[in-house]
Amino acid sequence: MSKKYTIGVDYGTQSGRTVLVEVDSGREVATAVKAYPHGVMDEYLPDGRTKLAHDWALQHPQDYLDVLRETVPAVLEEAGITAEDIIGVGIDFTACTMLPTDKAGTPLCFMQEHAGNPHAYVKLWKHHAAQDEANKLNRIAAERGEDFLKRYGGKISSEWLIPKIWQILDEAPEIYEKADRIMEAADWVILQLTGKEMRNSCTAGYKAIWHKQQGYPSKDFFKALDPRLENLVEEKLSTEIHPIGAKAGEITKEAAALTGLKAGTAVAVANVDAHVAVPAVGITDEGKLLMIMGTSTCHILLGTQEKLVPGMCGVVEDGVIPGYLGYEAGQSCVGDHFEWFVDNCVPAHYIKEAEEQGVDIHRLLTEKAGRLAIGESGLIALDWWNGNRSVLVDVDLTGLLLGCTLLTKPEEIYRALIEATAYGTRMIIETFRENGVPINDLYAAGGIAEKNKLMMQIYADVTGMEIRISASPQAPALGSAMFGALAAGKDKGGYDDIVEAAKHMAKVREDYYKPVPENVEAYNKLYAEYKTLHDYFGRGVNDVMKRLKKIKAESK
Amino acid sequence: MSKKYTIGVDYGTQSGRTVLVEVDSGREVATAVKAYPHGVMDEYLPDGRTKLAHDWALQHPQDYLDVLRETVPAVLEEAGITAEDIIGVGIDFTACTMLPTDKAGTPLCFMQEHAGNPHAYVKLWKHHAAQDEANKLNRIAAERGEDFLKRYGGKISSEWLIPKIWQILDEAPEIYEKADRIMEAADWVILQLTGKEMRNSCTAGYKAIWHKQQGYPSKDFFKALDPRLENLVEEKLSTEIHPIGAKAGEITKEAAALTGLKAGTAVAVANVDAHVAVPAVGITDEGKLLMIMGTSTCHILLGTQEKLVPGMCGVVEDGVIPGYLGYEAGQSCVGDHFEWFVDNCVPAHYIKEAEEQGVDIHRLLTEKAGRLAIGESGLIALDWWNGNRSVLVDVDLTGLLLGCTLLTKPEEIYRALIEATAYGTRMIIETFRENGVPINDLYAAGGIAEKNKLMMQIYADVTGMEIRISASPQAPALGSAMFGALAAGKDKGGYDDIVEAAKHMAKVREDYYKPVPENVEAYNKLYAEYKTLHDYFGRGVNDVMKRLKKIKAESK
Repeated sequence: MSKKYTIGVDYGTQSGRTVLVEVDSGREVATAVKAYPHGVMDEYLPDGRTKLAHDWALQHPQDYLDVLRETVPAVLEEAGITAEDIIGVGIDFTACTMLPTDKAGTPLCFMQEHAGNPHAYVKLWKHHAAQDEANKLNRIAAERGEDFLKRYGGKISSEWLIPKIWQILDEAPEIYEKADRIMEAADWVILQLTGKEMRNSCTAGYKAIWHKQQGYPSKDFFKALDPRLENLVEEKLSTEIHPIGAKAGEITKEAAALTGLKAGTAVAVANVDAHVAVPAVGITDEGKLLMIMGTSTCHILLGTQEKLVPGMCGVVEDGVIPGYLGYEAGQSCVGDHFEWFVDNCVPAHYIKEAEEQGVDIHRLLTEKAGRLAIGESGLIALDWWNGNRSVLVDVDLTGLLLGCTLLTKPEEIYRALIEATAYGTRMIIETFRENGVPINDLYAAGGIAEKNKLMMQIYADVTGMEIRISASPQAPALGSAMFGALAAGKDKGGYDDIVEAAKHMAKVREDYYKPVPENVEAYNKLYAEYKTLHDYFGRGVNDVMKRLKKIKAESK
Repeated sequence: MSKKYTIGVDYGTQSGRTVLVEVDSGREVATAVKAYPHGVMDEYLPDGRTKLAHDWALQHPQDYLDVLRETVPAVLEEAGITAEDIIGVGIDFTACTMLPTDKAGTPLCFMQEHAGNPHAYVKLWKHHAAQDEANKLNRIAAERGEDFLKRYGGKISSEWLIPKIWQILDEAPEIYEKADRIMEAADWVILQLTGKEMRNSCTAGYKAIWHKQQGYPSKDFFKALDPRLENLVEEKLSTEIHPIGAKAGEITKEAAALTGLKAGTAVAVANVDAHVAVPAVGITDEGKLLMIMGTSTCHILLGTQEKLVPGMCGVVEDGVIPGYLGYEAGQSCVGDHFEWFVDNCVPAHYIKEAEEQGVDIHRLLTEKAGRLAIGESGLIALDWWNGNRSVLVDVDLTGLLLGCTLLTKPEEIYRALIEATAYGTRMIIETFRENGVPINDLYAAGGIAEKNKLMMQIYADVTGMEIRISASPQAPALGSAMFGALAAGKDKGGYDDIVEAAKHMAKVREDYYKPVPENVEAYNKLYAEYKTLHDYFGRGVNDVMKRLKKIKAESK
């Protein structure tokens, strides 16, 4: 029997990335990337005339089809493999990235009469213009004592589905009216591939306030938001939610024509980019936390019992791996921290030194920071430059740097920022543990995890835990390909369960980061200081950060 | 009768500056500056071989004579005035800047046998190598419950006279033994001019723990430091201390030959550079605080009663103006703050922008900072990059910046640092007031006061007080010239009291800074936040800064 392969498609913010993977080994045979022709639309609609307001971020669904049309044939060709040997396809997406369609699933923005209306397009995850609706929703939910708030750290984000839908209703009721379905883009792509609406439990759970036992919030709640939303679920969404790991359907004739795959090829239920990386590093049971580290960090963890952990971003049954509770937490400012620092705080002579050495400025700062002993700088920071997502869930918290002297050097501040994010991660880990969700092992994926050895060693030393690193530079795409193999099933040369799939296809590097006992001890002292400051400024003893934000808002 | 003139000589850290002033108007007719040929010696002795340890800073007394030899004839010539019309001379000095001499007043470093010993030279104010002695002195004084500590904010600085003397005894007992006198350089110059030892009350009071009623610390105390110090005052110092404003003597024949002045010209008792600026801006009575603003800020204030104000740097009767108590306070990091920021935190594109505009980077940052509304940055800082001199008197406190976001800009931090120093000044003002020393008016002198309009307006708005600015760019030299006129007396064409002298010779600019009521209100809110943080981190609620400093010290 010839080797079997699956395909994973990872839809990111700027481009789609497709990888072709050997099923029995997880070997990534070929990769193709296509940048979205329309990119992120945050100034104008495609007509170049219709201006978008501040905080908008749209995409064009045609771009998602273009990714399939170009990259799938490209990986087949690069790998020298025929479509017969592709047994399954999986996809993952940014989320909540959503769009309104008609009954047939045609995006409203494809229709001449709506093409000039911004609300007819895909609202990307980072579309932040539904903040008013999110605020109102949170206020009403809190007043009504809605239970679901606890599963989301007490707050529904403006990035999520219901605020975005409500914004459409508020600002473009005719689009809301016209929309027979309002879908995650992830599910919409699955609809294009299989002809079936097969909404996934991951986006439903993390982004649309759905719960496996309790379903969506009540009609009463939606009515309290706006009477026209009372029947939202029945009218625009669906109560049929499919668990991660399930088969969504098979490639249709039309999809076969689009992609070059064979009709009948198995397609997995869609997934979210961060969450799908979990099996890609081999995590298929509880106690293992994956950090996906980029501009921000997303923490995903499996559990066997539903616990309410203060400040988590969500807990969803079947949300990550079938049969498990999937917990999500996050730090909203990790890589962004360092970009801000380099853009705003690094003196010219450091830039020159980096140029002379022919290295990136981050590399230079990291090298200099790496030569410092723990505690040598005398600095400590609170990593709240972009608020605190977990444990405090408070966007009004701000960054703090303490311990400056006239001898403080840029690399010392740089290292203090790295350490602050590590303390933030430890705070999240301890909060999970204190609330009955065990964490025994740490994994990391994403650009920072792969490249920054100093940072990963600091994380190991601060948490006192070993850290294993994804061996795939494209863990989400690999994870999607794994779910493709699961959708195909053992009979077709795939797998019947995710544990088996992970055993063969998942990858972590052989070498891993080990905490150094004396470093752990040194960091324990510094972490104790972080924790005191964290609680003093974050838990209401001194709300100076919020008052300054209020003064700032009023000053304009 | 022809116009009369006086001469003021201001001995700074790098050079001496001499100004020739018209007595009846205060007009500065001519100025001459001479850089010290030996500069600040902090690496080698003049032999180029004898290496100095870390933290040493020496000067050569010959340089002080060279200043007189060159600059006095130069101002006479530039002004086209004969020595007959010079009625008096005054000088001021950095302090504590001290040296050992023989009985005749010859510096030990002038003698062949001692020229190779660093302890034979002048120890400059910023010689910091007597820290061990200062620490021991403070410990012993505290254990003995010595009253004098309260007059100096609880701590004697390593920069002051007794620690410096004790260092000589510790490290070079042969020099200590050889020294018949240990003098302030200021008093030594007066000795050269008049042939008389006429120690001044300003350096005695602020730097040598002398008190007009109580004298020096007791023999018991000195004995507790080291038995060999028991009779220090009688053996090396003097109990005869002369008040500021008194006449020290007259130019001797030798001094006339050196300077080109006439023998018999009146010479004033010496003074300290910051303190002598007080009458130069017209302050001759209580309630008026002068800020001398440079790399650090020195605050001088007159009072009619001796009060013990927490964290002041000293209170000295006759220390500034005869008949008044002179209070001193300080902020150890003002201009230094901004230098640190520019050296370590300003990105290359700002430097480029400044270059393109042909302006200094401080000017660019100030312009950008000036366009911000109060509170717009959301930032607040504690100005402790170099510890806190007043009110907390704690070198182990460190700087704090709070309120950072990913949109925080360099000019916002720059402005936050300016504001932090203004809050620090307000804290000092309020502490004086709360302890019964009135402050009704604010004056400022020094480079920052003269040049930085934004900063001075912020100070006016933060303190809610008008600020008058010295009209002389060389206020200390002008002040010295005023004391020269006082030494000459009315009969010789000068003045008999400092109030009269100030009426004619002192100068402030016509325009001054006025607090803007709505700015004052806005800053009241921010100052309240500063105060809370100041007390939380500075008064022992959370000693994180000290613990981090300890960890820092141990990390090395």
